[in-house]
Amino acid sequence: MRTLFHSPLSPASRTVRLVLGEKRLPFEAIVERAWEKRPEFLALNPAGEVPVLVEDNGLIVPDVYVICEYLEEAYADIPLLGRTLAERVEVRRVVAWFETVFAREVSGRFIDERVMKRLSGRGNPDGGALREAYASMRPLMKYVNDLAENRNWLGGHFLSLADFTAAAHLSCLDFIGDIDWAKVPAVRDWYAKMKSRPCFRPLLNDRVSGITPPDYYTNLDF
Amino acid sequence: MRTLFHSPLSPASRTVRLVLGEKRLPFEAIVERAWEKRPEFLALNPAGEVPVLVEDNGLIVPDVYVICEYLEEAYADIPLLGRTLAERVEVRRVVAWFETVFAREVSGRFIDERVMKRLSGRGNPDGGALREAYASMRPLMKYVNDLAENRNWLGGHFLSLADFTAAAHLSCLDFIGDIDWAKVPAVRDWYAKMKSRPCFRPLLNDRVSGITPPDYYTNLDF
Repeated sequence: MRTLFHSPLSPASRTVRLVLGEKRLPFEAIVERAWEKRPEFLALNPAGEVPVLVEDNGLIVPDVYVICEYLEEAYADIPLLGRTLAERVEVRRVVAWFETVFAREVSGRFIDERVMKRLSGRGNPDGGALREAYASMRPLMKYVNDLAENRNWLGGHFLSLADFTAAAHLSCLDFIGDIDWAKVPAVRDWYAKMKSRPCFRPLLNDRVSGITPPDYYTNLDF
Repeated sequence: MRTLFHSPLSPASRTVRLVLGEKRLPFEAIVERAWEKRPEFLALNPAGEVPVLVEDNGLIVPDVYVICEYLEEAYADIPLLGRTLAERVEVRRVVAWFETVFAREVSGRFIDERVMKRLSGRGNPDGGALREAYASMRPLMKYVNDLAENRNWLGGHFLSLADFTAAAHLSCLDFIGDIDWAKVPAVRDWYAKMKSRPCFRPLLNDRVSGITPPDYYTNLDF
């Protein structure tokens, strides 16, 4: 069966889980503790990072960007990048913004400090890094709120990979309780729509040892 | 005319310059000091980063990933991603490896410490960061050397975006004199082939205030 090596609170892994679910492609999810650098896992992906997808025909597809572009080409029935060149540019632009700017300034920092340090035994969160992440978060969440206010979906007038990428990042932050939803009402409305999609359900059932998500994490009316 | 906002020693910008050249798409190159956060530039790309491509029809395409995928779709005569699903996965995998692992551990560190700090007035290089970059460089360059030894080109049996991405990163490191070519002979042979392509010439003419590249930087027989 199609297999995905992933980590529950990796936004890149969550993006792929959402896209596989949305495209109705069944898969077995295997949690990989990538920081342990298992030789068998490094053989699948020399970068040593999740997610890695292994298809039934043996094709190994690592990296969120590579997997999402592959799934779009291999399973085109439910397209998630748009049709025109301009639509596809805008969807990918929002995806890239989350994967680079938002990951570097906000989600990557929170997840590294609050989750990865604990899981990989690298000590306690660094208060300074968390303060920087909070400071960066305000203008960036405002940008996301502007997108959500002015469009049906984050990448344009249709549901796209931009929405799944954004939902993957924000759902990780929500799990560790770091989003003040009252300050970004348009994002909250958009996120409620995302949360109610069937592909989202497995993410709401994730449990991570030692971290308890807030009550509203699984609540569709939060 | 088609315009590219870029920075001479940004690997992402160099990748796009090489791809535009290889696809024989003429463009005007404008150096953008992205760290100055010009409002007109932020309007083109809210991420505030180079490269940004502006097409004659007004379409704005920011981000190296978005630009390269766009150019592949819009100008398909000279394809740079391969034909089969498996070929495209492998090309994109090598691209992603350079853009994430190699950029984070090696090229990003060297360029930030030796170039960006000087250009943006953020002080002197941090010796500790440079030592870490040198330590990371050895195994990663060995990996690139293994690829170059076992394949015609880095992404497979054909010239692809993997080669242009790799050449963009390595040419920046070569400009600042940080590659010991004698240790990676297969990479050197491959890089000599890349350097002799017409699309590479503009990169060899780059000059950056205050930084003198080594003599062999422009030499096709180095």
